[in-house]
Amino acid sequence: MSASDLCGTTEPGPRPQSFQAPQGDLAVLAGSACPQLGQAIARELGVPLSPCQAQYFSEGNVFVRVLENVRGRDVFVVQGVHYPVNDNFMELLFWIDALKRASAQQVTAVIPFFSYSKGDKKDEPRVSIRARVCADAVEAAGCDRVLTMDLHSPQIQGFFHIPVDHLYGRHVLCEHIRWLNLPDLIVCSPDIGFAKDAASFANLLGVPMAIGNKTRPAHDEQAVVLEVIGDVRDRNVLLV
Amino acid sequence: MSASDLCGTTEPGPRPQSFQAPQGDLAVLAGSACPQLGQAIARELGVPLSPCQAQYFSEGNVFVRVLENVRGRDVFVVQGVHYPVNDNFMELLFWIDALKRASAQQVTAVIPFFSYSKGDKKDEPRVSIRARVCADAVEAAGCDRVLTMDLHSPQIQGFFHIPVDHLYGRHVLCEHIRWLNLPDLIVCSPDIGFAKDAASFANLLGVPMAIGNKTRPAHDEQAVVLEVIGDVRDRNVLLV
Amino acid sequence: MSASDLCGTTEPGPRPQSFQAPQGDLAVLAGSACPQLGQAIARELGVPLSPCQAQYFSEGNVFVRVLENVRGRDVFVVQGVHYPVNDNFMELLFWIDALKRASAQQVTAVIPFFSYSKGDKKDEPRVSIRARVCADAVEAAGCDRVLTMDLHSPQIQGFFHIPVDHLYGRHVLCEHIRWLNLPDLIVCSPDIGFAKDAASFANLLGVPMAIGNKTRPAHDEQAVVLEVIGDVRDRNVLLV
Amino acid sequence: MSASDLCGTTEPGPRPQSFQAPQGDLAVLAGSACPQLGQAIARELGVPLSPCQAQYFSEGNVFVRVLENVRGRDVFVVQGVHYPVNDNFMELLFWIDALKRASAQQVTAVIPFFSYSKGDKKDEPRVSIRARVCADAVEAAGCDRVLTMDLHSPQIQGFFHIPVDHLYGRHVLCEHIRWLNLPDLIVCSPDIGFAKDAASFANLLGVPMAIGNKTRPAHDEQAVVLEVIGDVRDRNVLLV
Amino acid sequence: MSASDLCGTTEPGPRPQSFQAPQGDLAVLAGSACPQLGQAIARELGVPLSPCQAQYFSEGNVFVRVLENVRGRDVFVVQGVHYPVNDNFMELLFWIDALKRASAQQVTAVIPFFSYSKGDKKDEPRVSIRARVCADAVEAAGCDRVLTMDLHSPQIQGFFHIPVDHLYGRHVLCEHIRWLNLPDLIVCSPDIGFAKDAASFANLLGVPMAIGNKTRPAHDEQAVVLEVIGDVRDRNVLLV
Amino acid sequence: MSASDLCGTTEPGPRPQSFQAPQGDLAVLAGSACPQLGQAIARELGVPLSPCQAQYFSEGNVFVRVLENVRGRDVFVVQGVHYPVNDNFMELLFWIDALKRASAQQVTAVIPFFSYSKGDKKDEPRVSIRARVCADAVEAAGCDRVLTMDLHSPQIQGFFHIPVDHLYGRHVLCEHIRWLNLPDLIVCSPDIGFAKDAASFANLLGVPMAIGNKTRPAHDEQAVVLEVIGDVRDRNVLLV
Repeated sequence: MSASDLCGTTEPGPRPQSFQAPQGDLAVLAGSACPQLGQAIARELGVPLSPCQAQYFSEGNVFVRVLENVRGRDVFVVQGVHYPVNDNFMELLFWIDALKRASAQQVTAVIPFFSYSKGDKKDEPRVSIRARVCADAVEAAGCDRVLTMDLHSPQIQGFFHIPVDHLYGRHVLCEHIRWLNLPDLIVCSPDIGFAKDAASFANLLGVPMAIGNKTRPAHDEQAVVLEVIGDVRDRNVLLV
Repeated sequence: MSASDLCGTTEPGPRPQSFQAPQGDLAVLAGSACPQLGQAIARELGVPLSPCQAQYFSEGNVFVRVLENVRGRDVFVVQGVHYPVNDNFMELLFWIDALKRASAQQVTAVIPFFSYSKGDKKDEPRVSIRARVCADAVEAAGCDRVLTMDLHSPQIQGFFHIPVDHLYGRHVLCEHIRWLNLPDLIVCSPDIGFAKDAASFANLLGVPMAIGNKTRPAHDEQAVVLEVIGDVRDRNVLLV
Repeated sequence: MSASDLCGTTEPGPRPQSFQAPQGDLAVLAGSACPQLGQAIARELGVPLSPCQAQYFSEGNVFVRVLENVRGRDVFVVQGVHYPVNDNFMELLFWIDALKRASAQQVTAVIPFFSYSKGDKKDEPRVSIRARVCADAVEAAGCDRVLTMDLHSPQIQGFFHIPVDHLYGRHVLCEHIRWLNLPDLIVCSPDIGFAKDAASFANLLGVPMAIGNKTRPAHDEQAVVLEVIGDVRDRNVLLV
Repeated sequence: MSASDLCGTTEPGPRPQSFQAPQGDLAVLAGSACPQLGQAIARELGVPLSPCQAQYFSEGNVFVRVLENVRGRDVFVVQGVHYPVNDNFMELLFWIDALKRASAQQVTAVIPFFSYSKGDKKDEPRVSIRARVCADAVEAAGCDRVLTMDLHSPQIQGFFHIPVDHLYGRHVLCEHIRWLNLPDLIVCSPDIGFAKDAASFANLLGVPMAIGNKTRPAHDEQAVVLEVIGDVRDRNVLLV
Repeated sequence: MSASDLCGTTEPGPRPQSFQAPQGDLAVLAGSACPQLGQAIARELGVPLSPCQAQYFSEGNVFVRVLENVRGRDVFVVQGVHYPVNDNFMELLFWIDALKRASAQQVTAVIPFFSYSKGDKKDEPRVSIRARVCADAVEAAGCDRVLTMDLHSPQIQGFFHIPVDHLYGRHVLCEHIRWLNLPDLIVCSPDIGFAKDAASFANLLGVPMAIGNKTRPAHDEQAVVLEVIGDVRDRNVLLV
Repeated sequence: MSASDLCGTTEPGPRPQSFQAPQGDLAVLAGSACPQLGQAIARELGVPLSPCQAQYFSEGNVFVRVLENVRGRDVFVVQGVHYPVNDNFMELLFWIDALKRASAQQVTAVIPFFSYSKGDKKDEPRVSIRARVCADAVEAAGCDRVLTMDLHSPQIQGFFHIPVDHLYGRHVLCEHIRWLNLPDLIVCSPDIGFAKDAASFANLLGVPMAIGNKTRPAHDEQAVVLEVIGDVRDRNVLLV
């Protein structure tokens, strides 16, 4: 399914926009986190991937090198920040720096998954707002624009001073769910913090919603669901 | 009721901390938005309010002047950003600049209500993230720290690079509500975006919660409540 | 009278330059402060005004929205900072941010009247240099260039780090005054701070000048003229 | 004559303030531009000058070295920017950097003459605002505060984001002039740009003023006085 | 052996300075990279380690939390950037941010090994200067000072705008080597890039030196030694 | 000999790249330090030098003025920082500012000799890292890119956040030396700090190398050569 298949949806909010030809000569690079996605994006755009190389040394360092001229070009570097999160993030910073120092006209970081986006607030004393730290590091490295999707909270766009194109996967997902034709569907948010996004899914699908009231008492990965707000009895539940 | 009365609450999250004596000599100023609050804070701290003057001219400009020496002092300027929002905000910027240029050691902006905190995301194309614009202007004016409360979303702390002390009014409010001893109480969030804060109230009060699914179809001030998620029948509803 | 009518003047100083086609696609927006001027500029340039919307809420906030794609465009937003000064200034900041976050290539703030330009120095202790505060806020919001005219003092250009195009209305005004053909004309500056600008008028008109020595003892709007330096007896006085 | 002798003057504007003991341990350094002034300041404060060394090499470079520990100290470096202007300015930048990198708590640049302050505006196309360039370089080197006097225009304070203590020599000068007891004194500004300062002298001395209307047609050092505005016949003229 | 044992050395260059009591209340934290070193430093200083917690989640994220009040304190966080390099570096950034947002007066990053210091130049086209990227990220996170040792090249201090205390291990190492009393000792640098440091060792030990001319033809970890410059025959070689 | 004559060399490192046409309209200016070089560059590019003027006043100030429109142009200003170093450096800053304020699209500083590049480290306590101070001043003035050659150490590129094109003269020099056909040639580095560059010469020429171990005991211009590492007996020595 291509992006243009989504045109029929009626959601009023921000939507993936159709691609605009960049100014100057386009270049697409894939970091070591996203070789296939980079390849797919380049194929969709009809351009070759720019050759480049990321090398991890046994001491834990990563070294990056761009293998063709990018002077004056409009460069998109595709590098998600998923597992191994910190390796991928540092590699992203080095790509940005290498491209800017090679006189790229504009560098856009394409980050399909932005891991630290959960660290978006100071909900207990003396913790870091890690998503802001990451945003500052990306800007300090010289990034001109960020293209990402499905951030943990929409406020994270405001952690960046540079423009952020924030895309949503829900249009593609809901199209598929509608096609499944499930009777008596209800959308359920796993916790209250995700309720607003769940409401957007429910709205796109035209079905009601419920909300789980989950808590994570200790700082480990164990969560406890306290109650479900709303009535899910005898319904097909779409947990988002 | 003083802040120390709140010590009995059991909430694990961020809480108003007891006041720490600042480094150097303390000074408290009240801008034209908060004369009474400034007076109350100074009285509680046992210091006189520093004399100062804000003047609005018929052409719409505001002019501020600090009327005692603040060189090397630790200054708190109390200036909320409520109606008239833009006048109060610009006056705040000028206080910060006047104090920094007068060689104050540290300037803390005490902002009991931070109006543009609703403008914390880009939920439709080509709008401004106004809370970030305000945060940047406050930092550009030279502010060292911000002390505010009950921000529209906790992520707004991350819009600032400087430290933000974010206080919550809910401990004081819940103490009063408990004292009212209302039977069959349920907390109801007026919309999904406020659900997480409502859950914190429900948690503090030890009662269940419900959530209104509200929408604001046009950009005017008219909202439509679509449904209530959760069961509020025959209960005392605390709308937060 | 169009700008090109002014070509005959002999003033050696900075002059309005003829318009240069911008790089990329031009867009002109009018903020709520200058709908007619924005319309006139767009008409002169032969482009349609870009649709946009500024909305003031009863709580005092302003919300702005750009209603057409500005990605990669060279955008001029026309928003003066006259009465209500602070509303207009905050709206300007939000326009700049909305345009930059919408990936405009370059944003130029067109500010026909820059109100706080009188606050350009620290002429008594512990006041703010308000024009610098405004310049910093405009730059922090992401503005690329400023186009303004008849600043209170030419040094204000230096408060900005970004380029400022500073235009002068005096060529147009003097053309009209010459046409009036007033005998025994003398230019008089209302106070000493404006003497240099008055000299420029006198020079353009080829007439002598005098200077009023005014003072503003209190910080209200009452000024006292102490003396007139130079001889204005029996002459037509042009107070500038 | 010490600063405290000036207390009798009645000028309402900014005045030299009496010295406040700095936070932490005071250190005073004299750059190669001001050995005597630095010595005099240190003697007045009752502290020894901190030993330091500036060396000019035959290739034109200057090298600076601080010869005692300044860690955590409140350092004042005395280095005017008079002839040779560019050597003295670069040396000032290096002092600031050397002190900050040596972990001085705060560095104040004491600049008795700030040469490029005449370059404070863009009065013809495509020139530099040199005073802003110098201010930016001083801040980029890490300076915390500037102490200077008799800037060409008071707006230059606004070129700095850091605090500037701007002192005026006129109180000392006028005291001496009053002591001379000259009959029929009139203050005359050599050109219109200096009229406001001349008015301050006239005001301090309680005498009238006149203004020369000078111009500098070419960019060399030749000025032409066109006229004198005001009546100086048969008077003792104090050209300021 | 304590730092004071080193006082007998005659090296004129920078030396470990004796510890100065910080301004305000000292706090020492150990990140997860250096628990023992942190413990040893705290013990040497006679202060308890401040309790804190770093947690790595299975998705690869790290979360940090400071467990005691640091408001107004002078905090040293000990976190080396050795293997796993990227995890340790990101954790360092989050410590700095958490401490600054908790209103620490000053945060010093103590980095015993700064891994990316080899990435200090652009010795082939289109690579990143990784040490500068790291320095910028550390500064963007809000760090006030860095304390590190034995950087790959001394120029890296200049990548930071904040003060860097750069210590050398060689005084301790040479003391031990002298104690071994090896006959006919010669210092040999493994490659030309390290020759200057090897000369410092040779100078401290009072012995001659030789230099290996090594190259690393491909970007893997295999190096080839081409020749040895200087005569090492029949000598004890200290490879540094 | 043109740059393209160098194509036959086999050095793997960074090389002068062939000239790429800039975006927008090219402009080349020659500051007062490099009139002939600027002329030669313009001639090679087939463009006229843009008229401009630098004027030194007897008080030691320099004033610069660009004499043709540079709005939207891609400007290269050629201004080396050789003797008189500080005059040339300050003039460079003013050129950059004048060009940026005249709305040049991009300003590249072409600095054939960057004098303070020796001040690239803190090799004794409390000195300045002068090359970083210069880099910061150049960036604060608004420079977009730097083009320089044969920096004292390659790390200096990392002192700049903006892109630096770092060229090497050694390809041209070695071509000439090969042509001289000297028998038994050996390259000798005058001191250890320059050993790495000497190795590059030796590598280009295919000859062995030796290294002088020089020291500069006092801070004057007298150096002492302690020993020569490597065997130079009966050979032709190329001291680089």
